Amino acid sequence: MTDWKRLLAPLTLMLFAMPVAARGADPLPSWHDTGPKQAIMAYVGKVTAKGPGYVAPAERIAVFDNDGTLWPENPVPFQAAYAFDEIRRRAPAEPALAADPMVQALLAGDMATLLAGKHHDGLLHIMALTHAGMTSDEFNAAVSAWMNTARHPKFDRPYDQLTYQPMQELLRYLRANGFKTFIVSGGGADFMRVWSERVYGIPPEQVVGSSTRSRFEMRDGRPVLVKTMDAVFVDDKDGKPVGIQQFIGRRPIAAFGNSDGDKAMLEYVTIGNPHPSFGMIVRHTDAAREYQYDVNPKSSGTLVDALKEAPARGWTVVDMAADWRTVFADTVPGEKADVRVTERQ
Amino acid sequence: MTDWKRLLAPLTLMLFAMPVAARGADPLPSWHDTGPKQAIMAYVGKVTAKGPGYVAPAERIAVFDNDGTLWPENPVPFQAAYAFDEIRRRAPAEPALAADPMVQALLAGDMATLLAGKHHDGLLHIMALTHAGMTSDEFNAAVSAWMNTARHPKFDRPYDQLTYQPMQELLRYLRANGFKTFIVSGGGADFMRVWSERVYGIPPEQVVGSSTRSRFEMRDGRPVLVKTMDAVFVDDKDGKPVGIQQFIGRRPIAAFGNSDGDKAMLEYVTIGNPHPSFGMIVRHTDAAREYQYDVNPKSSGTLVDALKEAPARGWTVVDMAADWRTVFADTVPGEKADVRVTERQ
Repeated sequence: MTDWKRLLAPLTLMLFAMPVAARGADPLPSWHDTGPKQAIMAYVGKVTAKGPGYVAPAERIAVFDNDGTLWPENPVPFQAAYAFDEIRRRAPAEPALAADPMVQALLAGDMATLLAGKHHDGLLHIMALTHAGMTSDEFNAAVSAWMNTARHPKFDRPYDQLTYQPMQELLRYLRANGFKTFIVSGGGADFMRVWSERVYGIPPEQVVGSSTRSRFEMRDGRPVLVKTMDAVFVDDKDGKPVGIQQFIGRRPIAAFGNSDGDKAMLEYVTIGNPHPSFGMIVRHTDAAREYQYDVNPKSSGTLVDALKEAPARGWTVVDMAADWRTVFADTVPGEKADVRVTERQ
Repeated sequence: MTDWKRLLAPLTLMLFAMPVAARGADPLPSWHDTGPKQAIMAYVGKVTAKGPGYVAPAERIAVFDNDGTLWPENPVPFQAAYAFDEIRRRAPAEPALAADPMVQALLAGDMATLLAGKHHDGLLHIMALTHAGMTSDEFNAAVSAWMNTARHPKFDRPYDQLTYQPMQELLRYLRANGFKTFIVSGGGADFMRVWSERVYGIPPEQVVGSSTRSRFEMRDGRPVLVKTMDAVFVDDKDGKPVGIQQFIGRRPIAAFGNSDGDKAMLEYVTIGNPHPSFGMIVRHTDAAREYQYDVNPKSSGTLVDALKEAPARGWTVVDMAADWRTVFADTVPGEKADVRVTERQ
């Protein structure tokens, strides 16, 4: 017996769902109708339409830097904020930790000591203390707990509610057009994977980041992975194309970044690519709604060389102040409305 | 104006398409209706049906060993066959290569010299000569060319036509049920990624394997990745859960292997997993149609400890001779029919 009701149910859904697409709703409503939006839509149109620029869906790989590209990287990268908060949380109950000179410097607010030396050894030590020596499950639980309670000092919102609305729309727009979206970030892969799927719709297996090698152990008859500082891989600068090769294994066709740390990735994606490619740089020009550091580069988010190279390479440069109608994603239901950053038309 | 014809078209397709599913076509026709097939189907039914065992699609990660699990690993793993053939191809035109003592041993058929020492240094040297020092594009082209021309010594077929038909069906069956399928192999990730999508439907970004770190370079103004022997990662034994953590970033719910090299992966997936999990071992019992080495373990494919552990862990053990109706995938159109391995009912 044919269950007609069940067969017809999808059609009913379709009749309600399709007119939205048919109306041609704007997939990027938080972008002003300026150059970058036009360039994005023209590119996506080209690679998805049958014709000389067509790219098969399997090859539609898009890679996104995270800090400064999908969410802010000030006053410090959010993962550093996690490390600092975690030390403050643990120190009172862990005398050995509290006795560590770099921990004492951190607790005293002495950032100069942490950042001393060419390699910022103090900061690296703080990162090691908070990112190694525990199991992956313990680390994930600690990051989750922090994300649920910590708030950004300037915007007074949970960090995961500070993603850029225009970039969220861009991620969804690309995926709706058959792209597979990846994060390729200097941040730690394990840190991002805790929330990337919920926050960006990007599953853990599509997150490439700085990483170390865990150690497999059986503890009380149960398998665990213990985080170590072995085989450190820094997924930044030249490390980004290296990470792409090692973790994704093929050349993406679109890359999105915001700093000189993304230059090599942009080059790898856009120079000599057999497919039509797209490169984009988000420029932080918006002191009113976010931060302005394009004119006064900081250690995190320096954008000098990549910006110089952009015109010759055909990279699209986004001026946050001029090209974005909205900066941050709407607050989630239940959040205080007053923390919402005002739109700028 | 509503385009009813367009709206209705999917329904028309549905009416033709659905009866096939409704008829309950067997998704695993190359499996005899014995224990393993029943266990696979019961497990997939459990995690996909709403109920206490349900697992959300995002968490349906299945990991497959390759050598000995998806295709044979005898008389030598196919990647070693590639390395040997590649040395033979290159040596006549490269005097420096031909003068290498290990190359001379290989050309003389002196495997004892290559395998001497605890770490088989000679063999590793041959692997380095054929897997490092070239760009990723050059390596990919060489592997492709080899795959198009080389033939397996016993079966006289191209290597990529020696995949196990029952496992191909299993990959498709899992994907049709919302699983994301990954390879997690001791073989080289770069080697497998050249053909994994075409041969298994598994894209490069879902291939985890042994790997090294490439070097990013600009050559004549073009970005290239040069394969090196730096930061060698061996994705075998304890390295398998480590690779899963580093490359996939979450615990799979199903694992398929064939040797002690897969034991740690099977443990990681099936012990203490918060979701219902599935572990399976393919046992090589079929001297007539493939190889029998379950009773006489070789260096590649040793299955002793994992087999001992299987009953206590609830791992499903497949007896190739008894549980598989067909071993190899059908030859592709145009291939000689006489190389097709006879079915065994």
